[in-house]
Amino acid sequence: MNIAIMGFGVVGSGVAELMEKNHASITEKSMQPSMNIKYILDLRDFPDSPFHDKIIHDFSVILHDESVAIVVETMGGLHPAFEFVSDLLRAGKSVVTSNKELVAAKGYELLTLAQEKNVNFLFEASVGGGIPIIRPITQCLAANEIDEIAGILNGTTNFILTKMIAENMEMGEALAMAQHLGYAEKDPTADIDGIDSCRKICILASLCFGKHIYPSEVRTEGIRDVQLRDVSYAANGGYVMKLLGVARRVKNGRLCIFVAPCLVQGHSQLASVDDVFNAILVRGDAIGDVVFYGRGAGKLPTASAVVADVIDCAKHMAKRKLLDWGAPEEGFVMDCAEVPYRFYVRGVCANDETAEQVKAALSSQMLHITNAPSGEIAFLTEEISEKELRSSLASFSGFTIGSLMRVTAY
Amino acid sequence: MNIAIMGFGVVGSGVAELMEKNHASITEKSMQPSMNIKYILDLRDFPDSPFHDKIIHDFSVILHDESVAIVVETMGGLHPAFEFVSDLLRAGKSVVTSNKELVAAKGYELLTLAQEKNVNFLFEASVGGGIPIIRPITQCLAANEIDEIAGILNGTTNFILTKMIAENMEMGEALAMAQHLGYAEKDPTADIDGIDSCRKICILASLCFGKHIYPSEVRTEGIRDVQLRDVSYAANGGYVMKLLGVARRVKNGRLCIFVAPCLVQGHSQLASVDDVFNAILVRGDAIGDVVFYGRGAGKLPTASAVVADVIDCAKHMAKRKLLDWGAPEEGFVMDCAEVPYRFYVRGVCANDETAEQVKAALSSQMLHITNAPSGEIAFLTEEISEKELRSSLASFSGFTIGSLMRVTAY
Repeated sequence: MNIAIMGFGVVGSGVAELMEKNHASITEKSMQPSMNIKYILDLRDFPDSPFHDKIIHDFSVILHDESVAIVVETMGGLHPAFEFVSDLLRAGKSVVTSNKELVAAKGYELLTLAQEKNVNFLFEASVGGGIPIIRPITQCLAANEIDEIAGILNGTTNFILTKMIAENMEMGEALAMAQHLGYAEKDPTADIDGIDSCRKICILASLCFGKHIYPSEVRTEGIRDVQLRDVSYAANGGYVMKLLGVARRVKNGRLCIFVAPCLVQGHSQLASVDDVFNAILVRGDAIGDVVFYGRGAGKLPTASAVVADVIDCAKHMAKRKLLDWGAPEEGFVMDCAEVPYRFYVRGVCANDETAEQVKAALSSQMLHITNAPSGEIAFLTEEISEKELRSSLASFSGFTIGSLMRVTAY
Repeated sequence: MNIAIMGFGVVGSGVAELMEKNHASITEKSMQPSMNIKYILDLRDFPDSPFHDKIIHDFSVILHDESVAIVVETMGGLHPAFEFVSDLLRAGKSVVTSNKELVAAKGYELLTLAQEKNVNFLFEASVGGGIPIIRPITQCLAANEIDEIAGILNGTTNFILTKMIAENMEMGEALAMAQHLGYAEKDPTADIDGIDSCRKICILASLCFGKHIYPSEVRTEGIRDVQLRDVSYAANGGYVMKLLGVARRVKNGRLCIFVAPCLVQGHSQLASVDDVFNAILVRGDAIGDVVFYGRGAGKLPTASAVVADVIDCAKHMAKRKLLDWGAPEEGFVMDCAEVPYRFYVRGVCANDETAEQVKAALSSQMLHITNAPSGEIAFLTEEISEKELRSSLASFSGFTIGSLMRVTAY
């Protein structure tokens, strides 16, 4: 069985390396006489790579070679990945991708195309790197109605928050360290502003709730505005700050979905997820909470997920895996500012009287604060919608909001 | 599609309930026009159950009804479960079981039989209750060579250890509480002595390392001899005591497998697994460490795993899932007393001189001890095999071993 890889960057070269390293067992598990990488598509040449003789520059070679049954897309980006993958599926080839941007933007179209052509379009590596999550949701938790899914989906921001929490480091310093260690890009916007997490929670939500969710529908807030003192006030209350992607079915059957820094319970499995690790919590009606933890990025962990999909494609050439979701639906995603949550509030009171009034009206738990600017208070509320909370806070003319974050029930 | 359930206890009734509750989505995911429970086999009648009209007492009704394609075995125990399941597979029916005793003792025979008959024999629920673990190992981690698997596999003992750690409770008191809450049986031997964990690590090891491992090959030590002060000395060193099942491929390609209370690193994902929860860590050559966490027992969590297998059977009637392992192999399991580990040692020294000698010879980290009997010391060693350690300790005539436990690298 012939395979092509498109994009010989970190993940693509990891796929080639892993297929070479564990070749015998991968071939056996694929139930094929052989598993052979025939082409590697890249703009560049790699004269020093052991795979240099497989490098090609012309996509149409892969598209028109009928001996290539499975194509791995590890190019990243929306274009030309979308056009290439569409053409390949239309030509009856199965495609495996690690490209979250592609799946979040075009998942429904590509899955529909794959269905029409009776081929597989798999993307385990697009969320949580090597952590098994797409397949466990579709198969192992198939007997459950999923109520909620929440994850630490971005290693860079989790590394930064970990440094802030554990070493009292300022955000800027932690970011510089992440860049130095190669965990963050030179332009860290996609990580820091939650864009990467947003794409991933879109994929998970589409899978769990059956309708395509676009990133543009998701209220997305990164960690740029997180202050070191928010992290420490949260810790004083027994909470750990994490950047979460959350998708939750609310009572009216609609979906509350957002990306934002949240306060998670100190004893939660998510609280102890440190550094660049990722973890995803799934709450099902039968199973309760399950958590999947591991390396959310990196060459070989991500390649591990890609190759698992390749094996699955090879085993199921004749039959599609049941991995699909429906069309996007107007009004399915609701305004998450209307969904009740407990909130963390930090703000400055003009005087003691305001402080007393705000506390009396909204606080269920005051947080111990240290080295704070004059008049600053921090507290947790009872369950209240963000809309109501903001309107209530606005009614106190002497109160200025500094920070407002959701407190999760896990 | 008709299904039969054998054994209408906690898990069996959970399966019936869940199939009823999420009937529409389960039928859809099964890709069948209908999914119908036709029979429930039990010795008892259940006049008050909504399923009372499905109860039968005669196994041969199920065996000879050609309309029954999938049978769920939730009877537990080895006999007659083994005979029933063998007959069913031989008759060309797929079988789903939650019975760890059956799979640990007869997995190879039953998988071979299933292969001959081209039917499925699935057992996701036999390890970790509802936690997806069997399928992720076989599918999602298929690109990896597994180096090690370690798990908190028994909720009862984890509950007891959690109470000892968090509330300074004596073992007997914690056990009584577990019994009162229904977490432990009246006769808690299978849990406390590690027998239940042993069956589960056998199943995981057989799956990961490809050869059937019998419980009799596994050195099994429960928590009966754990002292409250071991728990607290461990905590003083930054470790948490957990009953682990561990299977690890060692350098010579053979397997080190055991069940024993171990000291895990305080920051490990396993350390924060509390109460009746279970967690399983898998270390692969590409993925690194992944951890799966959730409810390891209970009616609906376990039923969730059983029904996921039923759905998988229904989807794959024509084709077997690739889930197999080979025959047991003489000499594959090695004596784990020969494998180097760091150890926790507690013991009593006859005099100060002995204490100094033992420390100088073996300690890499002394542990802070409180309220200890006179002459007691506790320390961690460098890596050393248990054989060498015991022989070295025996050379100090003034030293009496109180407790000896492995320290894990996670």
